Amino acid sequence: MNPTPYDVDLDRTPANHQPLTPIVFLERAARVFPERTAVIHGALRRDYRSFWERSKQLGSALQRRGIGRGDTVAVMLANTPAMLECHYGVPMAGAVLNALNTRLDAAVLAHCLDHGEARVLIVDREFSPVMRQALALAAAKPLVVDYDDALAPSRGEAIGALDYEALLAEGDEDFAWRPPADEWDAITLNYTSGTTGNPKGVVYHHRGAYLTAVGNVLSAAMGRHPVYLWTLPMFHCNGWCFPWTISILGGTHVCLRQVRAPAMYEAIAAHQVTHLCGAPIVMSTLINAPAEDKRPFDHAVSFMTAAAPPPEVVLAGMKAAGFGVTHLYGLTETYGPAVVNEWQGAWDALDAAGQAAKKARQGVNYVPLEAVDVLDPATMRPVPADGETLGEVMFRGNIVMKGYLKNPEATRQALAGGWFHSGDLGVKHPDGYIQLKDRSKDIIISGGENISSIEVEEALYKHPAVQAAGVVARADETWGETPCAFVELKPGASATAQELIDWCRQNLARYKVPRHVVFAEIPKTSTGKIQKFRLRDMAKAL
Amino acid sequence: MNPTPYDVDLDRTPANHQPLTPIVFLERAARVFPERTAVIHGALRRDYRSFWERSKQLGSALQRRGIGRGDTVAVMLANTPAMLECHYGVPMAGAVLNALNTRLDAAVLAHCLDHGEARVLIVDREFSPVMRQALALAAAKPLVVDYDDALAPSRGEAIGALDYEALLAEGDEDFAWRPPADEWDAITLNYTSGTTGNPKGVVYHHRGAYLTAVGNVLSAAMGRHPVYLWTLPMFHCNGWCFPWTISILGGTHVCLRQVRAPAMYEAIAAHQVTHLCGAPIVMSTLINAPAEDKRPFDHAVSFMTAAAPPPEVVLAGMKAAGFGVTHLYGLTETYGPAVVNEWQGAWDALDAAGQAAKKARQGVNYVPLEAVDVLDPATMRPVPADGETLGEVMFRGNIVMKGYLKNPEATRQALAGGWFHSGDLGVKHPDGYIQLKDRSKDIIISGGENISSIEVEEALYKHPAVQAAGVVARADETWGETPCAFVELKPGASATAQELIDWCRQNLARYKVPRHVVFAEIPKTSTGKIQKFRLRDMAKAL
Repeated sequence: MNPTPYDVDLDRTPANHQPLTPIVFLERAARVFPERTAVIHGALRRDYRSFWERSKQLGSALQRRGIGRGDTVAVMLANTPAMLECHYGVPMAGAVLNALNTRLDAAVLAHCLDHGEARVLIVDREFSPVMRQALALAAAKPLVVDYDDALAPSRGEAIGALDYEALLAEGDEDFAWRPPADEWDAITLNYTSGTTGNPKGVVYHHRGAYLTAVGNVLSAAMGRHPVYLWTLPMFHCNGWCFPWTISILGGTHVCLRQVRAPAMYEAIAAHQVTHLCGAPIVMSTLINAPAEDKRPFDHAVSFMTAAAPPPEVVLAGMKAAGFGVTHLYGLTETYGPAVVNEWQGAWDALDAAGQAAKKARQGVNYVPLEAVDVLDPATMRPVPADGETLGEVMFRGNIVMKGYLKNPEATRQALAGGWFHSGDLGVKHPDGYIQLKDRSKDIIISGGENISSIEVEEALYKHPAVQAAGVVARADETWGETPCAFVELKPGASATAQELIDWCRQNLARYKVPRHVVFAEIPKTSTGKIQKFRLRDMAKAL
Repeated sequence: MNPTPYDVDLDRTPANHQPLTPIVFLERAARVFPERTAVIHGALRRDYRSFWERSKQLGSALQRRGIGRGDTVAVMLANTPAMLECHYGVPMAGAVLNALNTRLDAAVLAHCLDHGEARVLIVDREFSPVMRQALALAAAKPLVVDYDDALAPSRGEAIGALDYEALLAEGDEDFAWRPPADEWDAITLNYTSGTTGNPKGVVYHHRGAYLTAVGNVLSAAMGRHPVYLWTLPMFHCNGWCFPWTISILGGTHVCLRQVRAPAMYEAIAAHQVTHLCGAPIVMSTLINAPAEDKRPFDHAVSFMTAAAPPPEVVLAGMKAAGFGVTHLYGLTETYGPAVVNEWQGAWDALDAAGQAAKKARQGVNYVPLEAVDVLDPATMRPVPADGETLGEVMFRGNIVMKGYLKNPEATRQALAGGWFHSGDLGVKHPDGYIQLKDRSKDIIISGGENISSIEVEEALYKHPAVQAAGVVARADETWGETPCAFVELKPGASATAQELIDWCRQNLARYKVPRHVVFAEIPKTSTGKIQKFRLRDMAKAL
């Protein structure tokens, strides 16, 4: 490339270039809105000045303990003020935050600590029993720090070398933090929930975290000073990057340790919550709560959901309850949400079923994601936009992960051909909106025909008695596989297996109708995703 | 720096890294909202599909004409659909858009064409007479393209090799454009309005344009589908990057060739305009319009103003007329707005004068600007945040220009010490908000005391008869300099020089009171800034 006049004497300097990092969002909020409430946790209120100073203390204390660039700081924390502080303090020290899934067992936790080479581990005392076991199993010997939250439902004994507040006290609230030298530097490590085998470590960088945080504002059309309720676990894709998003707008975080209806309604009414996120199961919890657990509210509340398409009855229930619902989609590998069901004004004219059908589609790329498409993985060509042809959903752009930590082969495969391969199967509609049909490993192949487990679940969800449904393949001598449905009924509702099979016959092609319907509690991940691998085991054992 | 595990096998790939460019905003809007109205110009309506296809045709046609990376495409255009298309089509070809100030004279235009090495020049036929002269003076021999707009107030003869529509017809609406190889690549060239000597060529890059465009959304708290009225010239800092901002939200551009009250009110009422930008003079035009030029509207309209602090009476008038006003500040070197007067909820309780005093302050950094501060240029230390100590306003971050084209010495000086030196003098208040006091060259030094010309102008603006005021230094044998005021009165209002001097005595320290008050039309730039260098000439000639 020949240099042009625009390439000469016009270089990057400290005056006109700085690596992107979401840390600046909190720095700015603390300067502009020092006295605004940043964090609410039970009776606790922290303003932006305090949130920022405590984060700096944490960053400073970590550096004084010898933690620096590329060191891993693992945390086993609920949605608490400390978890928010870690999202700023840890990267401020140059280190990488590894927020562990608090539902994991000791063996998997030990694997994460070892694989991530954790040098510090901050543990909420609710989780000290399992973490004590994990540490006994792990080769890693991190500095262990206890976090003692008065609102924890149970508090195990201290297992650390010091308490979180004592660690902070070692740090300087005037810490002269510096942005990373390179915006490609890692900011967090997130282990995939991993349905089989050991989880993979997804690495995020400062640039992607900055852009996703901004993308949330753009896609949610959030105004100034939102009040955000933490129904989504922050260990899940760093809470879809909302710990950083809220600072952009000088908003308020309302912490929540447990996703229960009374506490959610209480927070919504008391703090005028404007936004919250979660899987459809959280919406079901809200709308199916007994009347005495509900609290009235008359302001606009926006619920951003992902992990599964919101069923029509849930959307209708949410609308009646006063919530607006936005459907998002993404994976751990895409910083959480990277696709949004952009609502079209013309759809307002549709009936409830028509609107739900539109909203069930995953949609279009987030502003900071350059592209999402459905490709034939063999040819890497887009499938026709016919709403029928199945392909693999793939992502490309600045909010795709750096890769998997210490796993070059998995990284190479995941990012092959210039696209991130999601493993999700979907179609592209004529208007360009994508719609998931299934995980490639969840598809049911019956008599040579592909059956989308999601489609069968959708049919079941439409039955008035069904609260939750999960459909998996069951081996069959004649057909190869047939659909097997696991169902939870609503409290007080009743239905027989035959009734549900008849229902499906009226709503699905014959070959898609489940051969077996089992009433059972459906195993879910901490984020509300149905654990299909467990259902497959259950189906096998029938 | 020793590599850590996070630095190994986690490189940038086409799947997870793409240079930032604002072109993607239009690409996405055209895909997601193809049928939404993107552009209104008189009776013309263009949807996003058409806006995108025409932009691609332009990019393709330019490439077929041999225009590529680092080539300059100059345009002499009013706020028209073609001007919007150029903001996408030109960078799509890899080229650099140089939007010329349509008020410039032939000699300065010739300088810009030569200095910028324009290879293509697109000229609205309103401006063909002056451009014919400029081309006769210039050494550069660009391909000249005529743009023939039916709404132009006058149309000179064609001076080009072909018409704009003919150029587009040479291009491919399916043009396979590519983002720049490097987001640091130049996207536009903007000549400073230049009060003396030849203007400097400020170079913007794709990264900064992307981030400023996003910053506008964040600072204006713009919702989905805004309707944006083009009262700000697009040749001015690329219309503060709003040609790109509006695409992010799938909004509508309402073009406007001339900033006159009837057309503005007509557009606001007819198209439900939600946002517009301009200098305080545009606000004065709106509120001082005769009743027959006004049109009622009952929706929220947000006016973003910059270039001078909005006077209290103007703010009161805007509020009464139904406009919300946000005060922004920036320079050509900072992509236009880079500082925003973030409104604090507590200020709602102040009276009108108190609110105006708060709103007159320039404020705090835009989200994508990492810092703005007031420094002592000798020591490069921040001045005390006392609201009193004068220093130079300086900027640092990703929305500071690459530098001045072919002017390494000016670039080096402007970006010395890790900050962009604005040349504006200001103070920092205890709450961190900055406030301009003057351009360093506009300060009046009288008997050894510094007098801020802005402060004297503010006092004059408060007089009920004053429509506009400009204050400059006039040489004085005794005092060195004394303030000399030029004043325009409101239509129908009257006041004598002595009355205004007496008014100032009541509102200013004695030494700041103008010795001379002259009633005259005040020369302004095309963007409404008072041309102090001309006032100084007029003062000298008194």
